[in-house]
Amino acid sequence: MVLYVIGLGLSDEKDITVKGLEAVKSCERIYLEAYTSILTVGKERLEAFYGKPVVIADREMVESEADVILKDADKVNVAFLVVGDPFGATTHTDLVHRATELSIPVIPIHNASIMNAVGCCGLQLYNYGQTVSIVFFTETWKPDSFYDKIKMNTDMELHTLCLLDIKVKEQSIENMARGRNIYEPPRYMTINTAVEQLLEVHETRAAASPESKPAYTKNSIVVGLARVGCDDQKIVAGTLEELLTVDFGGPLHSLVIAGKMHFLEAEVVKAFAVDKETFDKYAVVSQH
Amino acid sequence: MVLYVIGLGLSDEKDITVKGLEAVKSCERIYLEAYTSILTVGKERLEAFYGKPVVIADREMVESEADVILKDADKVNVAFLVVGDPFGATTHTDLVHRATELSIPVIPIHNASIMNAVGCCGLQLYNYGQTVSIVFFTETWKPDSFYDKIKMNTDMELHTLCLLDIKVKEQSIENMARGRNIYEPPRYMTINTAVEQLLEVHETRAAASPESKPAYTKNSIVVGLARVGCDDQKIVAGTLEELLTVDFGGPLHSLVIAGKMHFLEAEVVKAFAVDKETFDKYAVVSQH
Repeated sequence: MVLYVIGLGLSDEKDITVKGLEAVKSCERIYLEAYTSILTVGKERLEAFYGKPVVIADREMVESEADVILKDADKVNVAFLVVGDPFGATTHTDLVHRATELSIPVIPIHNASIMNAVGCCGLQLYNYGQTVSIVFFTETWKPDSFYDKIKMNTDMELHTLCLLDIKVKEQSIENMARGRNIYEPPRYMTINTAVEQLLEVHETRAAASPESKPAYTKNSIVVGLARVGCDDQKIVAGTLEELLTVDFGGPLHSLVIAGKMHFLEAEVVKAFAVDKETFDKYAVVSQH
Repeated sequence: MVLYVIGLGLSDEKDITVKGLEAVKSCERIYLEAYTSILTVGKERLEAFYGKPVVIADREMVESEADVILKDADKVNVAFLVVGDPFGATTHTDLVHRATELSIPVIPIHNASIMNAVGCCGLQLYNYGQTVSIVFFTETWKPDSFYDKIKMNTDMELHTLCLLDIKVKEQSIENMARGRNIYEPPRYMTINTAVEQLLEVHETRAAASPESKPAYTKNSIVVGLARVGCDDQKIVAGTLEELLTVDFGGPLHSLVIAGKMHFLEAEVVKAFAVDKETFDKYAVVSQH
């Protein structure tokens, strides 16, 4: 019949839309994509709310078992649930592609994602440049292409939304080598770690080309957002250095690097400032 | 008690979240912001769905009668409904500000907006640059600052989301001069009009500085999106020239100017192409 790809929004089981909930209830099987983002509630809460079982779909399953997910979808409805909006992640592109090949209609049901909900920090959505991703650095792998993108944005006085890394169902090198299906606990990058990595890259780049204007410095104003849309969401603004030590609590975290702020934007952001004096000192604000 | 600012999503009464619907039902008064965006259903459908009356809040009311909207909000809950996400528009910033002054807690409830739902056209959200607005040209007023922003985006190979103008509750110059409260019918910019204006600006700019690389030409690939999230949504890709004459039906319309497309993006967009041959001829596609 139909493959529904349903956005769950950002927080808990009640952030699904009424349309999405009706679709879920019409489905014979329900899968939850659980490796690019998370809600603050587990699948048990979803199952209780829907009155139906929910199957966790990990990366392996979505990427290699599309036909299992789509089994009988020409006769029954199947729901594929995605945290945020269905089109926020690209992970299920293959699934949708496969459904189309099998002539199974795909109906997406939209919802909030961090890409628009970030507006709650007071920086207007139409003043953002390209979004960047910051992944966990390792001793030997420190991908820093975000730096050039942030630089392009700040050169144009635009804000930058930084999406922070999530590692789910990772194997240690040892377990992988031995073929043991033992997985590490999930890791969600904190704002503190993101700030550390940003400062590390800043130092490397500044040392390499001391004459060029940096994308940001330790005194640049940024806004950290944790658990956007939840009752206990936390938004704190400050310099990168100030945010190094702020405790934002549990996941998910995001970070915005402010470009030039309109004074009305600055007013809202300042209300979140960890220190209003340093905010006034370092914020770049336009009066018109 | 609480001012809820509730996103309604993009299509009809059932795009509200379950959390949003519960909030609405707890409210003594419900206002609908109806001048920056619209659903495909009228307030009667919302009233029937909520089982409560809904008051249309026009610009005048939101900007100058915040205290009427907030009356008794220290004792009862008040809902302010916004099409899309609460933070998509800036129109109610003053209302939220006034509530804060009166120590009334403000709780936003997020939802989809075109800023993230546009992902449905196949161009990935993290490959967009700054969003631009295109307003109705008049004989004497043709604001074209969008051109420079689009140029910055396409120079960086990024896509551009163009939000198209809405005119609600406008007065003719004559009626305004005579102080008559007679309003013109609402106008929603079509994709065709946006394309005409884009081409007009292109010609002016190209004539003024023929040596510089244009932001786009009549052969640039764009994607028109109408009524995103509705059952009858329409997505068509083609060159600007090709989209001049495509009938997209009723509002709301949006337009995306494609930058360089990853081949997986191009595959999805091509499925929407009005002519696959011209698409292949003019699409700028990267293979990695």
